Amino acid sequence: MGVVVNMDGSHPEKKAPSVDLLVELTKADIAKVNQHIIDNMQSPVALIPQLAGHLIAAGGKRLRPMLTLAAAQMCQYTGSRHIGLAACVEFIHTATLLHDDVVDESDLRRGRESANAVWGNKPSVLVGDFLFSRAFQLMVADGSLPVLKILSEASAVIAEGEVLQLMTANDPEATEEAYLEVIRSKTAKLFAAASRIGAVVAERSQKEETALDSFGMNLGIAFQLIDDVLDYSAKQAELGKNIGDDFVEGKVTLPIILAWRRGSAEEREFWVRTIENLDQKEGDLEQAIALMEKHNTLSDTIDRAKHYGSMARDALGIFPNSDAKSALIELIEFCIHRAH
Amino acid sequence: MGVVVNMDGSHPEKKAPSVDLLVELTKADIAKVNQHIIDNMQSPVALIPQLAGHLIAAGGKRLRPMLTLAAAQMCQYTGSRHIGLAACVEFIHTATLLHDDVVDESDLRRGRESANAVWGNKPSVLVGDFLFSRAFQLMVADGSLPVLKILSEASAVIAEGEVLQLMTANDPEATEEAYLEVIRSKTAKLFAAASRIGAVVAERSQKEETALDSFGMNLGIAFQLIDDVLDYSAKQAELGKNIGDDFVEGKVTLPIILAWRRGSAEEREFWVRTIENLDQKEGDLEQAIALMEKHNTLSDTIDRAKHYGSMARDALGIFPNSDAKSALIELIEFCIHRAH
Repeated sequence: MGVVVNMDGSHPEKKAPSVDLLVELTKADIAKVNQHIIDNMQSPVALIPQLAGHLIAAGGKRLRPMLTLAAAQMCQYTGSRHIGLAACVEFIHTATLLHDDVVDESDLRRGRESANAVWGNKPSVLVGDFLFSRAFQLMVADGSLPVLKILSEASAVIAEGEVLQLMTANDPEATEEAYLEVIRSKTAKLFAAASRIGAVVAERSQKEETALDSFGMNLGIAFQLIDDVLDYSAKQAELGKNIGDDFVEGKVTLPIILAWRRGSAEEREFWVRTIENLDQKEGDLEQAIALMEKHNTLSDTIDRAKHYGSMARDALGIFPNSDAKSALIELIEFCIHRAH
Repeated sequence: MGVVVNMDGSHPEKKAPSVDLLVELTKADIAKVNQHIIDNMQSPVALIPQLAGHLIAAGGKRLRPMLTLAAAQMCQYTGSRHIGLAACVEFIHTATLLHDDVVDESDLRRGRESANAVWGNKPSVLVGDFLFSRAFQLMVADGSLPVLKILSEASAVIAEGEVLQLMTANDPEATEEAYLEVIRSKTAKLFAAASRIGAVVAERSQKEETALDSFGMNLGIAFQLIDDVLDYSAKQAELGKNIGDDFVEGKVTLPIILAWRRGSAEEREFWVRTIENLDQKEGDLEQAIALMEKHNTLSDTIDRAKHYGSMARDALGIFPNSDAKSALIELIEFCIHRAH
């Protein structure tokens, strides 16, 4: 690849990776997906569209539906089934967010008050159930058993991952493998399923389905690793989330797992007190971040994410070059670059 | 029908309707359903079978799966698909129970501590999600889109009903129609779906599907009405449930709706204080029951249940006589007789 040199002879700043290309490529389709979502979250029970709309209309990146749309495009799909299925993916995602916020007792989501903070836990649980059921209704309307198989399995794995996370919570001695198992299930599986569906609607080979599954899985892992880094980073505030949420909840993520493994006996006592016993006081979050910096665990978590990002990129190797492929590759870079 | 006269000339006590015939007819199938349930609630995440097993193994009547099994039998189905689908129905039911107990903050279920009381709300929400997803996986494995359509629609309607109940809770001025809409959705819809599936697997006509749907719907309404009466009856303790749970939660059921409509201004103040404002003191439950007895609202609710029971019975009119049909008709009588 040639090096671009400006007219004055200087090297230009390398442009930061962005989702602009992906957004541009899927713009028309996403508008249809959004309409599909709005049409299908309606119910004579007024609270359902109110509560669902609070979360869905709040935006979010529509990252998962964009995966389905771009994957279908990369597979040269020309039909319209990917619209409804992308909406299903977002419904499933939204349902898990609603239940997550109840389980995590979060009060912020996408930069605004979470649904459970506004309406309480009860409607959040039940509207989550509704959206989940509605997602299956939409899949049934689509009529493809292979798609139903992919998304029902993904849903079961997501729930398994959430329970696993609950069971391994507050244990700073958790292994990196156990942590990876949690994020594969609770986050990456839906990325994998969303991507794979693009190949299914386009009736591509099993090999291409598997490649897209692998792309989504590894992208999802990288995405979640960076998310976990961001929870301790100054950039977090920009995303409309609280800083140190994971710490306050005693959620064990890779930056903590590595800090525990690399830490002294005294440092491990700090982690046991703050994470295992949730006995936290003023200045503990700062101390936690200082220990992470001492042991480079934030930057090493980013390196781990880069590894999965590379796997995601290589998984796409069997597809010929196209705008959609370029957009998906830039998405990987964007997900990782968020941490910088 | 002739009158049986004993040898000594006395009339024997009319035998109380029971589920014995239904249980006997579905015994072999239910054993397979139970095995199917146990096999499919397994997960490498240990808490899932523990928590699900707590509820599922606790027994329960397996009423809904029995509907599928008996309906299939009445439709002379000879295959084995009804086993897996009956398990799906029970999984969906169990998932909604888990979420219900979280929403209702119940501490008893089927005579033992509820899952949320033992493990807390978080795993109950997530294991409910898992069972729900697993139900869809099992349906996908069965491979019938019509069945998937019936059960995904039922699931959405159940969730809608639960949200509707939440919105109309604590309003003693709610109409009988609004209340019926809630119980049609949250309870009767799954009875209808479970029954209908029996005709679907047997590949019976649309007319027979509809008849079984109507049977299940009306049976479900009758069942829930009696359940609501039982919450104020001495028989309740035998079922291992608290007496007056609905009252304490301010849940507006038909016995209260009728008492409000038939009550004096002073009595309505009592309902507003206890149900709408949840300002309850010692002796209020007894006073509530006294008002219900004064206005015959418990016995009139039983009469309403009998009306729906009759509709359920007549819906089965198009099926020729058979043991399965007799068992289903006796089930209707049993459901209503529970209140006596």
